[in-house]
Amino acid sequence: MSCVFCEIVAGRSPASVVYADEEILAFLDVRPMNPGHTLVIPRVHAAGLGDLDPRLGGRTFQVAQQVAGALRASDLRCDGVNLFLADGEVAFQEVFHAHLHVVPRFTGDGLRIAIDWSARPDRAELDRIAAGLRSATAGGPTP
Amino acid sequence: MSCVFCEIVAGRSPASVVYADEEILAFLDVRPMNPGHTLVIPRVHAAGLGDLDPRLGGRTFQVAQQVAGALRASDLRCDGVNLFLADGEVAFQEVFHAHLHVVPRFTGDGLRIAIDWSARPDRAELDRIAAGLRSATAGGPTP
Repeated sequence: MSCVFCEIVAGRSPASVVYADEEILAFLDVRPMNPGHTLVIPRVHAAGLGDLDPRLGGRTFQVAQQVAGALRASDLRCDGVNLFLADGEVAFQEVFHAHLHVVPRFTGDGLRIAIDWSARPDRAELDRIAAGLRSATAGGPTP
Repeated sequence: MSCVFCEIVAGRSPASVVYADEEILAFLDVRPMNPGHTLVIPRVHAAGLGDLDPRLGGRTFQVAQQVAGALRASDLRCDGVNLFLADGEVAFQEVFHAHLHVVPRFTGDGLRIAIDWSARPDRAELDRIAAGLRSATAGGPTP
């Protein structure tokens, strides 16, 4: 039942806080990909992207932008930044309280993303897929 | 000088559009990690996260949330979603017009993220890093 991030929000678990306001909390990942690896979360529990109030989603991203700027301005090794969000177990989500990773990057840090990247769909195939997605995005309210 | 995404925004290059409004455009990646892989961009040129108006950053994320919902509702293979943003060459940015990847994920798609994940900094070390970043985030205006 208990959510480890809700425990941090409630102050019952420790966290090294990078940023905090009434709605958003940012703290260091205890298993960092690189030093300074930060997680940005809405205080209110939302398991995934589909449960997350779009207004809070937007604010989460804005705080991630601020953290990225702080990482670049810091004395940590940071020549670039990756933002990463995992929505669903198959997408590597481990804590089911939506969180946006802010990962400082530097030359030689060894991070790699591996997938079969050889697909080159033609324009007709892309247009067919886009048409299906367009009708689905048009169906929902614009946030 | 020319930016391939600005060419798409201007209608001079083809794109398979998933979502469009006055500020934001979403279209399919021509080199997809999986079918349905979508890029969400602000229409106005911003090279990186630090150049991106936080208001437009928030809207970019909100449209990505909508696209993620559309992918899950579609007939494409999508049991989960990754959001990914590359800021800087070392972080794998290839087109220098800020863009948020929305990648549908499914069991067995073979995507892996590899890095030396063994670091376990203690709380004192995390607190020291957080203190440095906190002063930097406090220094800038809250978006």
